[in-house]
Amino acid sequence: MSAKFITVEGIEGVGKTTNIAFIQRWLSGRGIRYLCTREPGGTKLAEELRGLLLKPRDEQVDDVAELLMIFAARAQHLSNVIEPALRQGTTVICDRFTDATYAYQGGGRDLGTGKVAVLEQMVQGDRRPDLVLLLDLPVETGLSRAKKRSDPDRFEREQLEFFNRVRHTYLDRAGQMPDRYAIIDASLPLADVQAQLADVLSEHFDND
Amino acid sequence: MSAKFITVEGIEGVGKTTNIAFIQRWLSGRGIRYLCTREPGGTKLAEELRGLLLKPRDEQVDDVAELLMIFAARAQHLSNVIEPALRQGTTVICDRFTDATYAYQGGGRDLGTGKVAVLEQMVQGDRRPDLVLLLDLPVETGLSRAKKRSDPDRFEREQLEFFNRVRHTYLDRAGQMPDRYAIIDASLPLADVQAQLADVLSEHFDND
Repeated sequence: MSAKFITVEGIEGVGKTTNIAFIQRWLSGRGIRYLCTREPGGTKLAEELRGLLLKPRDEQVDDVAELLMIFAARAQHLSNVIEPALRQGTTVICDRFTDATYAYQGGGRDLGTGKVAVLEQMVQGDRRPDLVLLLDLPVETGLSRAKKRSDPDRFEREQLEFFNRVRHTYLDRAGQMPDRYAIIDASLPLADVQAQLADVLSEHFDND
Repeated sequence: MSAKFITVEGIEGVGKTTNIAFIQRWLSGRGIRYLCTREPGGTKLAEELRGLLLKPRDEQVDDVAELLMIFAARAQHLSNVIEPALRQGTTVICDRFTDATYAYQGGGRDLGTGKVAVLEQMVQGDRRPDLVLLLDLPVETGLSRAKKRSDPDRFEREQLEFFNRVRHTYLDRAGQMPDRYAIIDASLPLADVQAQLADVLSEHFDND
């Protein structure tokens, strides 16, 4: 069985942290060696870029500047962490990846798919996730969960319509590439969410 | 007379700082309103990116990550500083711009021109400098001057062959686009360097 590249996607408050912990337990239970990482981030430089991206600022951040910073962090993360792990047979679980860029920058910021696709090819070549777990939830539910946590970062300060565009871009992409995407209904009780995750994981790992 | 976008290029130790001060005095003497800025940098976010780029690190920095960080800073600088200044009729003097990216990343890092050209178009559209002042000097002379200053940054730690590739990429570009580039022999005594600069500036401003 070859190492897989699994990404976990979704808007604020869908329960990524809790469910990534569940995925880790599931993989450990099968004796599958994995690495858990996140974007933007995953290396010291990429985490520094994440810091610059998330910090609320007085300065208006240019949409293309934001997009390029995200792909800069991704290039660094891929070359220093993700590609070496996959080469060594380690499954990688990544909290957000390029689908988030299509959703937040392409959809949320209304940049469209053209520039994102050019940069995806430049930075990733043929590398794509083997499985995208999209935790889906109505935006209002997600945001009201996320609000209970900490001070909102630069993205969390966006308006409802922004997150609706993000959600619908995620769902559109999942609809276009059903083999690679699993839409998980994250509005259900946690046990049901995790039963869905376990089913998808079994399908992808046990038949391999 | 319309505002001009002037960039000053060259390797370490060619005397950019001193000669930019001369250019400012020259413009002031003609009553030309100007703004003096630099790359990577020119806004708070872009200067933070500059900090990440220049800092020596244990982590191997991916060449494409470096390239994308530079263009992220450039997108921010263009949208928040350079384009608004030019629109208001202010001449812009910029200490390094995209020619430096062709020279350092395309040439020095051996990335070639393809990716640089794609990003130049994505970030700049049709914006190009009206005049590129290339201060040219043998690499050995420049580096021995630069060494006398401060601790070397991540670029200054590169080897002689790196800087020779940078210099020759600069010269090649200047040779290809002679209307836009002026090669200034920076190995001459300062008074002669500045006489060359004054000639080029007169030609570009006085006939306008």
